[in-house]
Amino acid sequence: MRYARLSVGGRGVWGRVGETDVELLSESPVDGRPDVIGTVPRATADWLPPVVPPVFYAVGMNYPRHIAHAGVPVPDRPEVGYRANNALTGHGSPIVKPQEVEGRFEAEPELVAVIGRTLKHATRDEARDSVFGWTIGNDVSARTWQHQDRTFWRSKNSDTFKPMGPWIETDVDALAATTTLRVNGETKASFATGDMVFDPFDFIVEMTRHLTLHPGDVLWMGAETTCRIEPGDTVDIEISGIGVLSNPVLLEGKEQA
Amino acid sequence: MRYARLSVGGRGVWGRVGETDVELLSESPVDGRPDVIGTVPRATADWLPPVVPPVFYAVGMNYPRHIAHAGVPVPDRPEVGYRANNALTGHGSPIVKPQEVEGRFEAEPELVAVIGRTLKHATRDEARDSVFGWTIGNDVSARTWQHQDRTFWRSKNSDTFKPMGPWIETDVDALAATTTLRVNGETKASFATGDMVFDPFDFIVEMTRHLTLHPGDVLWMGAETTCRIEPGDTVDIEISGIGVLSNPVLLEGKEQA
Repeated sequence: MRYARLSVGGRGVWGRVGETDVELLSESPVDGRPDVIGTVPRATADWLPPVVPPVFYAVGMNYPRHIAHAGVPVPDRPEVGYRANNALTGHGSPIVKPQEVEGRFEAEPELVAVIGRTLKHATRDEARDSVFGWTIGNDVSARTWQHQDRTFWRSKNSDTFKPMGPWIETDVDALAATTTLRVNGETKASFATGDMVFDPFDFIVEMTRHLTLHPGDVLWMGAETTCRIEPGDTVDIEISGIGVLSNPVLLEGKEQA
Repeated sequence: MRYARLSVGGRGVWGRVGETDVELLSESPVDGRPDVIGTVPRATADWLPPVVPPVFYAVGMNYPRHIAHAGVPVPDRPEVGYRANNALTGHGSPIVKPQEVEGRFEAEPELVAVIGRTLKHATRDEARDSVFGWTIGNDVSARTWQHQDRTFWRSKNSDTFKPMGPWIETDVDALAATTTLRVNGETKASFATGDMVFDPFDFIVEMTRHLTLHPGDVLWMGAETTCRIEPGDTVDIEISGIGVLSNPVLLEGKEQA
């Protein structure tokens, strides 16, 4: 099943995505039992981030090739970081590059696990069962800020720097998938989604030793590779069996151009 | 006015805090226009964190004495970081020290600004007007983990490591207040709350150059000093004109002792 959130009359509404239509739902399917309250044609859907998480977890270096390229040690245990909800934007919405950004401005294609239940001290089996579904994230990064600043506050969390979507797919073996990154239709990278140092269940087991995960929390799993993006580009991230997250890139102040 | 959130019949309910009673409210006073829907005696109130923020911002080194003690350079611009909602707990609830924590386990008394409106590209006047009110935070930290880990995930964000409350005070000149930290009734520190390198409005102006703040977002302003806490202790943080945030410390697995 594919679940999304749409903007309908200025409100965020959950939806179940079919081939031609999206059925609108009365409440969240993550921790509720929604009824169908309407339908909109899929072609006219205005996609929001498919969930606004209570906590937005993100993994850093987690792909062997990315780690080798960065010249950093391979992590010996799963350590998670954070991103911020203000930066989320949906499928089809623009990534806005701030006027002040200089240097490399990059896309990072990531698998995202969406947590479906409350859990602490999870076993690996419980960690597996806790994932409601999978979506796609683009961990857009301004590298000069990333290197200048003590935190990732503006390098990775400026408004629109975290596209997520288009929907949550509940029926896919995400770790057997292929991630493909395209800019203006040209393939820039393609890699085995599951070729991770620590997989999502390793993280969930380790994290829940000390913290409680809640329905709707998201865990972004890191990227194998990055590529430059510039205003005027369109960035597509495809994860096979989930879908395609597509976002145009615009320059701040020229969002309507 | 003082606004809190209480646990009532297993639900989180907003309240307006009076001398002897708490009036229960139909919705959030931060961005709504609540009606009074009931009353509970203040003495029996079960306090929750006074707000669950969309984004949980936290300042690091921001007091000259703390910076001098740590031997780090004085920040030349306001850079914000993050904490995680799973770690929040209310006034009166226990701080649970994990069995695995070794070394210094410490309290950090902090002023917290609660944002009341949506804003971006704020002027200093707009930043001032955007603060709905003020509360108190305890940025509990496990130092060995803080030094071992690449992120603050478990050192500062394990469950119960972020007591916040007891309420949001809307009518106080928080930057003219005094912060006092007590353990088992003994004063461990007392400092001018407003003796900051960058004040909350400096942060809001800088942050909103690149990100949108939303109603309910919180900004923890850093601590001037810290002190050790251990299971069996009770930690009180008072900020004059706001109130007292009090939490017992328990050892994990002995929460019922």
